[in-house]
Amino acid sequence: MRDVAILGIGQTRFGELWDRSFREIGIEAGFEALVDAKLSSTDLGALYLGNMASGSLIDQEMIAPLILDYAGLAGHHLSAVRVEGGGASGALALHEGWLAVASGAHDFVVVGGAEKLTDVPDTEANRIMSGTADHEWEAVFGATLPGLWAMIARRHQHDYGTQREQLAAVAVHAHEMGAKNPNAHFRNRLSIDQVLQANPVADPLGVFDCAPLSDGAAAVVLGPMERARKFTDTPIRLAASQVACDTMALHHRRDLTTLDSTVVAGKRAFAQARRSPQDVRVAEIHDGYTISALVSLEDLGFVEKGRSGPAFASGEFSGSGKVTVNTSGGLKAQGRPFGAVGVAQAVEIVRQLRGQAGDRQVSGAEFGLSQDVGGTGATSVVHLFERVN
Amino acid sequence: MRDVAILGIGQTRFGELWDRSFREIGIEAGFEALVDAKLSSTDLGALYLGNMASGSLIDQEMIAPLILDYAGLAGHHLSAVRVEGGGASGALALHEGWLAVASGAHDFVVVGGAEKLTDVPDTEANRIMSGTADHEWEAVFGATLPGLWAMIARRHQHDYGTQREQLAAVAVHAHEMGAKNPNAHFRNRLSIDQVLQANPVADPLGVFDCAPLSDGAAAVVLGPMERARKFTDTPIRLAASQVACDTMALHHRRDLTTLDSTVVAGKRAFAQARRSPQDVRVAEIHDGYTISALVSLEDLGFVEKGRSGPAFASGEFSGSGKVTVNTSGGLKAQGRPFGAVGVAQAVEIVRQLRGQAGDRQVSGAEFGLSQDVGGTGATSVVHLFERVN
Repeated sequence: MRDVAILGIGQTRFGELWDRSFREIGIEAGFEALVDAKLSSTDLGALYLGNMASGSLIDQEMIAPLILDYAGLAGHHLSAVRVEGGGASGALALHEGWLAVASGAHDFVVVGGAEKLTDVPDTEANRIMSGTADHEWEAVFGATLPGLWAMIARRHQHDYGTQREQLAAVAVHAHEMGAKNPNAHFRNRLSIDQVLQANPVADPLGVFDCAPLSDGAAAVVLGPMERARKFTDTPIRLAASQVACDTMALHHRRDLTTLDSTVVAGKRAFAQARRSPQDVRVAEIHDGYTISALVSLEDLGFVEKGRSGPAFASGEFSGSGKVTVNTSGGLKAQGRPFGAVGVAQAVEIVRQLRGQAGDRQVSGAEFGLSQDVGGTGATSVVHLFERVN
Repeated sequence: MRDVAILGIGQTRFGELWDRSFREIGIEAGFEALVDAKLSSTDLGALYLGNMASGSLIDQEMIAPLILDYAGLAGHHLSAVRVEGGGASGALALHEGWLAVASGAHDFVVVGGAEKLTDVPDTEANRIMSGTADHEWEAVFGATLPGLWAMIARRHQHDYGTQREQLAAVAVHAHEMGAKNPNAHFRNRLSIDQVLQANPVADPLGVFDCAPLSDGAAAVVLGPMERARKFTDTPIRLAASQVACDTMALHHRRDLTTLDSTVVAGKRAFAQARRSPQDVRVAEIHDGYTISALVSLEDLGFVEKGRSGPAFASGEFSGSGKVTVNTSGGLKAQGRPFGAVGVAQAVEIVRQLRGQAGDRQVSGAEFGLSQDVGGTGATSVVHLFERVN
């Protein structure tokens, strides 16, 4: 398989974009990535688009050809494929785009992710999100995504003594970063006290422990590494792309506080890239809920099992340690347009590796990781990124 | 890229499967394909699942890991990806599965397609199907899929003098084949008069010009051609896999009666396989509406533009010509569980090339084609299949 490089990146603002439609935000992100890659649309072979639930949310299926069409590219008759895996949809699209270029089937592809969550009432969006849990054994009995993640949090507290304040530290860091990101849904800073005193959602998680419902889109342009220098001075190599799955329902897991899909996808990715967690300087990880960031850090091998709470609270992942996580603000502050998340994670890692992250820049960032999770971990996708000097 | 072979096939009965759930039919088809391939589930690397609208139809997203899980395979932590392109979802899944094996990323993958359309009222299913047209410019104004295809039929009649009876001949042939297919939704024969006298749906199309709403699932197992002999005496080579897209809305097409996505996907596929339409003996084509079969035959190069009506009525595609189409009964009689269709087409072509099609067997079938269409042709996928002796 050929080495694949990321040649361009694009992203809309994340938030409540009530004045703009799904197709408008999809096109904006895609064109920005094409312009950034200095690539003409006539060079493209395919579009891969990650999206969770456009059918339920905006009554529109077949959104991949839709975006091509309204970008003015219908006449090129490109391939266009939508990919879905709940909250991991964007990273799955990146995986399929990587396969398309690595295989030699296409030279240049756009990978996009987009979701429009705020065109329906919040209660309806939450019902639709519950479709990423096991409908017949979880959702139908009233379990919601925050409710399920709250059970993981409770068990983590029980098994490892994780403190409520340690969970809150994840949200405080996310908002600190969001304040520095002009694309972020939330740009306000939060204190530990504000997180602790927020309205409860599903105990122990309060409203500031949960990522918001956002609209937004992100895109990257992929191409073969051997031609990357023609387009950019700082090609970023996609060093690994791995998908792993697990049971849908929480009650079937061997251990409630371990996302085996993340453990396996992470190990496969480090093996593919012949690297280890010690090489990672920046990581975008799944903080859809504060607890999901803590277990993900353990499952990716960045910290010993059970020790993520004290480690995060001591600043080990927010600047004082080897890895800095979620410089974008993460799902919590940058926002959570489900299908766009995995692609936006890649966009932020590329910014960091190029040295274009502004106030959020992590010095010496040459190797990065992104981890995207669907549901409560039935799907995890891990990508590794490397600056090629 | 490596040559890819189809090693196993499986399919449920198509129809109103009210006593069985989505996950049950998905698992049945997948296991049948694994058993047919004589492959152990521990050899698998990935599942690709084609599905149009499980979120809207059964309140369940992330159906690819769901099927893996309930098949007892969660512990293997395979990759599982859902692929969507309306009615072309199944063929898109086959395309992505082909890429996964051709690239070398995986050795053995299961490609499935499944849809459960009859768990919601027909009116709701029809509303959801309209999501494969352009929601903002077609569906929102009341256009339905049969309504849009009826406009194509009208124009074909106007431009080429196509007769109502010639459209009806497509349905009569489909039911003739369905009567011989134990998996078919409809197993009754129809006469031209019955089709002409049926209740109108969207003039000139009556109820027997339109494929039904069906439940069903189908699956194939793919592997590298160089290892195929270990599993089967009759490996079927996937000689080409091509996707092409076009405008979502009909009013943006350069010609209402030509599916440019099919024209382009077909040309690319024949170029990839270094073959021509003259080599094809069996073809599964999109007869979601009788008119869609006629325009598809023209767009794939099997008959001159405008001449498909008289050619079909004279038996050229139902036994007396070089190509016999839709021996499965097609979407019209075998049934239309959207996401399953493209995979079921591959299953039928493999049966024909293996000589296992029973009463429906076409003699001398060594090279076959399948064409799957999403919406009114915004996406077309063409596959070519070759028996390797």
